[in-house]
Parts: sequence; C-alpha cells; structure tokens
Amino acid sequence: MKKLTILGSTGSIGTQTLDVVAHQPEQYEVQGLAAGNNVKLLIEQANRFQPKAVCLSTSELAAEAAPHLPAGTKVLHGEEGLIELAAAGDADTVVTAIVGSRGLKATLAAIDAGKQIGLANKETLVTAGHLVMNRAREKGVSILPIDSEHSAIFQCLNGENRRDIKGITLTASGGSFRDRTREELAGVTVEQALNHPNWSMGAKITIDSATMANKGLEVIEAHWLFGLPYDRIGVLIHPESIIHSYVEFVDHSIIAQLGLPDMRVPIQYALSYPDRYVTPTESLNLAAIGRLNFREMDFDRYPCLRMAYESGRAGLSAPTVFNASNEVAVARFLQGQIEFLDIERVIETVLTKHQLTELHDVEAITEIDAWARREAEAV
Amino acid sequence: MKKLTILGSTGSIGTQTLDVVAHQPEQYEVQGLAAGNNVKLLIEQANRFQPKAVCLSTSELAAEAAPHLPAGTKVLHGEEGLIELAAAGDADTVVTAIVGSRGLKATLAAIDAGKQIGLANKETLVTAGHLVMNRAREKGVSILPIDSEHSAIFQCLNGENRRDIKGITLTASGGSFRDRTREELAGVTVEQALNHPNWSMGAKITIDSATMANKGLEVIEAHWLFGLPYDRIGVLIHPESIIHSYVEFVDHSIIAQLGLPDMRVPIQYALSYPDRYVTPTESLNLAAIGRLNFREMDFDRYPCLRMAYESGRAGLSAPTVFNASNEVAVARFLQGQIEFLDIERVIETVLTKHQLTELHDVEAITEIDAWARREAEAV
Repeated sequence: MKKLTILGSTGSIGTQTLDVVAHQPEQYEVQGLAAGNNVKLLIEQANRFQPKAVCLSTSELAAEAAPHLPAGTKVLHGEEGLIELAAAGDADTVVTAIVGSRGLKATLAAIDAGKQIGLANKETLVTAGHLVMNRAREKGVSILPIDSEHSAIFQCLNGENRRDIKGITLTASGGSFRDRTREELAGVTVEQALNHPNWSMGAKITIDSATMANKGLEVIEAHWLFGLPYDRIGVLIHPESIIHSYVEFVDHSIIAQLGLPDMRVPIQYALSYPDRYVTPTESLNLAAIGRLNFREMDFDRYPCLRMAYESGRAGLSAPTVFNASNEVAVARFLQGQIEFLDIERVIETVLTKHQLTELHDVEAITEIDAWARREAEAV
Repeated sequence: MKKLTILGSTGSIGTQTLDVVAHQPEQYEVQGLAAGNNVKLLIEQANRFQPKAVCLSTSELAAEAAPHLPAGTKVLHGEEGLIELAAAGDADTVVTAIVGSRGLKATLAAIDAGKQIGLANKETLVTAGHLVMNRAREKGVSILPIDSEHSAIFQCLNGENRRDIKGITLTASGGSFRDRTREELAGVTVEQALNHPNWSMGAKITIDSATMANKGLEVIEAHWLFGLPYDRIGVLIHPESIIHSYVEFVDHSIIAQLGLPDMRVPIQYALSYPDRYVTPTESLNLAAIGRLNFREMDFDRYPCLRMAYESGRAGLSAPTVFNASNEVAVARFLQGQIEFLDIERVIETVLTKHQLTELHDVEAITEIDAWARREAEAV
C-alpha cells in the first residue's frame, strides 16, 4: 500500500489523482491533502479519503473548513502549513500538483524528508532544477514525472541505458489556437484560449499550451529530469496528442508512448511504478482514429517556446525569470488586463531587462522570482 | 566481441547482417557462413569476413567454391553440413536467416550447442514452436527476434513486467496489393506481387506480405516468442510501416517502436542486445513523413491471415501444415504454375484435408510437413 500526500488536491491533477486512488483503494492510503481556496471540495475530499492532515491557503479558510472535517484531522494553513504537510507523517510519496513556482519550498521539504516525488508541478524544476535534482540525488529520492510528455519519456527509457539516447522529442498539440496565424491571434478572448482541443486541464496550463510556453517549460523540465542538453530535446507538433513523446536511440530505433489523452495514466504510473495497475481509462484504438499528423515546430509562430529554449540554454537565473514573468503575464491575461499577444511581449521585456545571475539557494531564487514578477506586473 | 554464424548469408537478411557487421568490425567476428546456391556471393563474403567454415547446399557447389576460399576455410554442404556449421566452433550467436522450414534442424542444433539465436526464420517457430522454445528454455538460450515486428515488441518490453501486458499489436503494411479489392487480384503477375511498397525483402516474404500469410506467420511466431494467447495478439493495417508494432499494458499505456523501414536496425539489435550500437541507417523524421495511417484488418480480404489464426488456435500440427502448404503454394506461384488467388485455395484445401495430430519430435514434424507439401503440390 502506497501512502500519499497530494499538494494541490482540488486542482485538475489533484482531483484526477484522487480518482486514481478511488479506483484502487486497496493500493493507496491518503495521508495529507493541500488545497488553495476551494474549501468546499477539500472538505468533501477529506471526508471521503480521511487524511491525517489538510492544508488551506489562509487561516480564515482553515478555520472555515475545520468544523466540517473528520474528527482528529489536523488543519494547517499558508506556506508554513504546506511545507509542514509536505514533510509530515509517513507518506512515502508526495504528489506536487500545485501550479506555479509556489510549489518549490514544499517540494524541497518533501525531498528532505526522504519522500518520493510525483512531479506535476513543472515550474519547480524550471525555476530551481539544479537545487531540486541535487537535493533528490543527495537524499536518494526519485522524482517521478506526472506530466504526460515526461511520463512518456520515462516509460520509453524503461530497461534502456541512458547513454544510448540520441535525443528525445516532446510532442505538442499546438493548443487552442494551432490553426490560427499570428495575425489571427490579435484580440482573441480568454474563453477562446481556454478551449483546448485535446486535454482538459487547469486554466494556467491551457493558456501556456496556446502560447507554447508550456512546451518550453516542459523542455526545461526534461533537461533536468533526464540530464540531456537542449540540442538533444526536440519538439514536434502532433495535433492528436496520441503519441505523448518519444526517445530516439543511437541505433535510430525510436520508442514512443501512446494513449488517449487522459492524465490518469501518467498519474497512476508515477504512483505504481515500476508496476502497472489497471486504470479507469479508455483503450486506444488507432484504427478508429485513422491517422496521426505531425509537423515541424515553428519557432516564429511560437516565440514563447523560442524564449524558453534561449532561457534554458542561458541557464542560471534565466529560466526562473522566464517562468515568473510568464506566470504573471498569464494571470494578467486571464484577468483581462492584457491581450493574448501581450503575454510574449511581457516575457520578452522582462527577460531583456534581466541580468543573468547565479542562484545558489532558495532565497536567491525567491528574490529573482519576485523581481521578475514585479517587472512583469509593470510592463 | 560477438562471434557470429549466419545461416542464409547470401539472402536479404544475411547480406544485411553482414552489412551491420562491416559497419562495426571491431564488435563482431564471423565464424561461419551458410548459403544455398549463390556460390559467387558466398566466395566474396568468405574472402571479406574470413569465416572458419562455410556451407553450400550441395557437394558440387561446395567443390566449385573451395578453390576460391581463403586457405584453411572448412567447406561443408547439404543439411548435414548446415547442422554441423550451426553447432560448430565458438560462435556465441547463430543468425537463422534461411527461408522456410528447412531451417529447423540447424536451429535446434545451434540451441543444443548452447548458442544464442538471432531468429529471422519465422517458419521455424511456426512449424515447431513448442520444440524450439522448450529446448531453448532447457538450454538457457535466448531467442532474439530479428523480424522487425517482433524486434519492436521485444524492445517495447524492455524493463517491463510481462504479466502487465494487455495485448500486442503487429502492424501490417498491407503488401503490394493493399489498394486492390479481391476482385482486382485475379490475374495479377509475379512481378506485380514482388513490388512491395515499403520493404526490400526476399521473394517468398514479399509474396507472403501480399497474401498476408506473412502476418499470419508472425502472429504464430509472436505467440511462441512472447507466450501470449491468440486473442491478445492483434493485427492493424498501417501502410507506412513506421510504427513497427506495439504493446498495450493493463494501464492502457502503449509502448511502440518506430523507425524507417530498414532491417538493419532489428538485425543489429538482436546482435547488440542489451546494448544499442550506431547503425548505418537513416533517422526517422516524423514531420517530413507528415502523417501515419491506420485501418482495421479485414479478414475477408486476407483469408491467409484468417487461416493462420485458425491454425494457431487449433495448434498441434495445424501451423506446420499451414506453413508447408503456403511455402509450396508461393513457390508454385513464383514459378508461374498457379495464380495469385490460388495460393489461399491451395492452403485451404490442404488444411481442410489434414487430420490434426500431436507432434512430439522433429521426425513427426518432418513427416507432416512432407505430407502437406505433397498435398499442396497436387492441388
């Protein structure tokens, strides 16, 4: 039986993780659940899965939830509470499904406590890849990817020797605006941007898919997870999202992972690895789909992806700044403050202004992250 | 350094195996080469690769070759010679690339001598799967598939637990007549049938691809190699032959192996396993290919495949009879004695007439094989 703590339990990945748990209750025990502001859903989840502790973003929300939780449930709040929950108790795996770089300190705390990480929070690796991977190595902790692309690569590497990798390719659906030219992006609405063709996901990642910033974050995440230089990480447009990603080996043999777009498969794989359990998902029928399409990535069409590669290659503080300015720009777009095409302009402005520096610790990262956020708000 | 003996060195798989060897001469040493009637090419190969022994089909051909071989080369001939070569010397791997059930005794001799098998001769497993697999298990010998589909499955199973397999799917290009209806198959010529759209292969297998008997033989081969019942082995038409085959696991995750159609990749994998070496082949560019197509297999369009499944499910002597009658029918078609659509008629006639019997040893197999051949000649 696997003991789980889920950070971000009321979000898209969090609820799907609990769906996987509910499907095979004999395999899992839920130790802790952390949510942001969704008190109602957290209460429901706590009553169903009986965790030892829960966390909400503020003391007010924690107080609001407390009377409705099972007797004896510990109620935590805020960043301190999140960090305590991440490291607490006898959970052996922590699923980090909080969106954005907020997840960093809690992830590090979980690693320090020797917990295996089911990583859905890609911003953690983007913003602090060197710290997280070094810490995990020191502690002998596995970082198991939950992102479908990284889970695909991880699965394709099963039983293979990593020195035989020629390169990996992350597939990209192209997002909600893949059939529009750049000119046709002017004036698109939030609602249009949120209408992803294949995946049902949270708002932030859906916008990131439309700008291709998401694929950029994934490229940086892959760099850290698989220890590959950027020139061996490619991106290919594949509108159907059936081939989730693939590895090419030195002998030109390609191993790919395929399936219907359903996050519960990679979520469960991160939890059941190295075993595979039956999932509550549909089987892929390639004949019914009929054809899979592929086309070259266009870096002029998707400048956010170009900037992600440039930030990754520059290293040091650049990915942190890319990520923080993107987070702010997306939030401002979702709030109607800026246009869709302003997202890339905000990122480019902040990246241009930024001075590359070394980031030796979490404090340095937090500082540069905060600087980039202030700058991104002001563009 | 791997020491190789190649049975069928002048055929399509044999010459490509030597191409792989020539590409990385420091990795391989050729111990023995067996050919049928192509004396000229065998002499060339022997002078280039300096094997300790060679074999030709008759004593006349052996005598013809002898003066042109490097000094000290042992010259064998006939079935006895082939068996001696297969078991001889210190080769650690024997590549069985002889076409048809003629390869059986030599393959068993190689297994008895403790040699790892690079299996390109699928008829061996079809006709005597139980004997070959049991013998290999007893001797602790690995059977490494060279057929591209089986190599794909074998690669997809790397690092996986076989009890997690839900099913495997072999892809089929559809062969040279895939765009014709059954009505349009009447009167097709040998030349038309030999014009395979994707793979450059020997004549027998190219005709078998057009009738889909080849896929049927592969299904039976997969049954033996991977220990799966027939209802967990599927076949899918995929005209581009880019996805070479795939495995679905119980969690609905599919692992597939892809590449340009080039036999040198699976040949080398069987030789280098579990390592991967650089191959003299081209890298696959999915964007350049643009799209992959898939459609359901049509068992009415391809009765040879239906009969292969029926034979496999019936077991005992049925696959041997299917294989032998197919071999004869294809030879008769290639010689212009019968029409293309007669191939399936010959097989069906012999299968219908045949009485299912148990096959305890090679002698019983040889006997039923000979019976089926006589019957197939007489249809």
